[in-house]
Amino acid sequence: MEPIGERRWAIAEGYIPGQSTGPEPEMLSHETACILNAGDEPAQVEITVFFSDRDPAGPYRLTVPPRRTLHQRFNDLEDPEPIPRDTNYASVITSDVPIVVQHTRLDSRQAENALLSTIAYTSG
Amino acid sequence: MEPIGERRWAIAEGYIPGQSTGPEPEMLSHETACILNAGDEPAQVEITVFFSDRDPAGPYRLTVPPRRTLHQRFNDLEDPEPIPRDTNYASVITSDVPIVVQHTRLDSRQAENALLSTIAYTSG
Amino acid sequence: MEPIGERRWAIAEGYIPGQSTGPEPEMLSHETACILNAGDEPAQVEITVFFSDRDPAGPYRLTVPPRRTLHQRFNDLEDPEPIPRDTNYASVITSDVPIVVQHTRLDSRQAENALLSTIAYTSG
Amino acid sequence: MEPIGERRWAIAEGYIPGQSTGPEPEMLSHETACILNAGDEPAQVEITVFFSDRDPAGPYRLTVPPRRTLHQRFNDLEDPEPIPRDTNYASVITSDVPIVVQHTRLDSRQAENALLSTIAYTSG
Repeated sequence: MEPIGERRWAIAEGYIPGQSTGPEPEMLSHETACILNAGDEPAQVEITVFFSDRDPAGPYRLTVPPRRTLHQRFNDLEDPEPIPRDTNYASVITSDVPIVVQHTRLDSRQAENALLSTIAYTSG
Repeated sequence: MEPIGERRWAIAEGYIPGQSTGPEPEMLSHETACILNAGDEPAQVEITVFFSDRDPAGPYRLTVPPRRTLHQRFNDLEDPEPIPRDTNYASVITSDVPIVVQHTRLDSRQAENALLSTIAYTSG
Repeated sequence: MEPIGERRWAIAEGYIPGQSTGPEPEMLSHETACILNAGDEPAQVEITVFFSDRDPAGPYRLTVPPRRTLHQRFNDLEDPEPIPRDTNYASVITSDVPIVVQHTRLDSRQAENALLSTIAYTSG
Repeated sequence: MEPIGERRWAIAEGYIPGQSTGPEPEMLSHETACILNAGDEPAQVEITVFFSDRDPAGPYRLTVPPRRTLHQRFNDLEDPEPIPRDTNYASVITSDVPIVVQHTRLDSRQAENALLSTIAYTSG
């Protein structure tokens, strides 16, 4: 399929709640970057994470194979360092080929979960 | 009415929960592609579904009549194959005339439901 | 302030739940088109509502004064006809001056409410 | 990092619930403008708040340091005046350098919280 998307995306909202209720891993509070690579070449993706009071973390490096989607939990990013919980952050996601990025949070701090999802920002 | 929209859309987030609570069909957990065809010609729409670990499924073919909206549940896509539950996916939606696509999920795995909605991505 | 926005918007998702819980009017299930007119001229706005199985309704006519916001509940549209409950719909919103449109739903069918919000689509 | 974003953003939806449940400050009902300044220069940001029945408030002035994110609660804006609770509003956010803006609401009026998030509108 012809590639669809952009090479540079930003998500200004980020927050991994430190608490969860319900069975893991489905109901673990998490933030996810949903990445679609609809093209025929692998996507080399880099995520940089910004904070309010310290220098950025990263880049975190991922590969999304051709014609695949990767739903990457920020909770699971470990290298070069884990993302702190209960901390505001933002992210910039770059790729060497066009991708589409959408952001989702499951917040299970309380008995009933809340969900949010937003298309990431791109300037093309 | 003059057509409004684009011919190519992408939704990077997709997940149909395998469990539901509450009366069906309204409260069945579902993901929906809300498609608006505001123009005067029928829209021939194709949906391709991408996964993390296998080749894409589809295309699923739909027709949206002129000056109509179709709120298509991914749960109900059957041909060429149903969408698996509890599985991350993404989708690309194409049309031969301009349409507008918005994505909504009702998650009723728990007693109280969660909703999310996001405009799909388009590059025009 | 210099105007910001566009003259033509679309919201592909629309659904007013027929049931609510909690005190009205705050907790009445509703869909809202949040319209911002940041410019110095009044905005003459028209809303056309599309359905899956009948011709469109409207136009519904509104005026948003200069440098004001109007959060219009679809529930309250009466002329030329009310929007049916428990029915999928979509909408196109046009204005003679630039406006910004965002879409919000409060769903209070169950004890705990769900919220969604999405920027409307515009092609400029 | 190369700057990413735009200089002018609008959020048509705004509403700070006057009531909350759960521990503060995390679970206090709030609206937040999540601002990312990925560039190497400080961002001088101004927020103007629009209402349905009175002249706009502001500008509220903020600085976002280079390579930092600021998650600004509208609840905490005090100068030149606080934002009233239980009141519909909208906002325009301008910056002298490119930024990315995303809007989030936590609504904790009821026992279980609702979340929403939307990318702000920008015309570039």
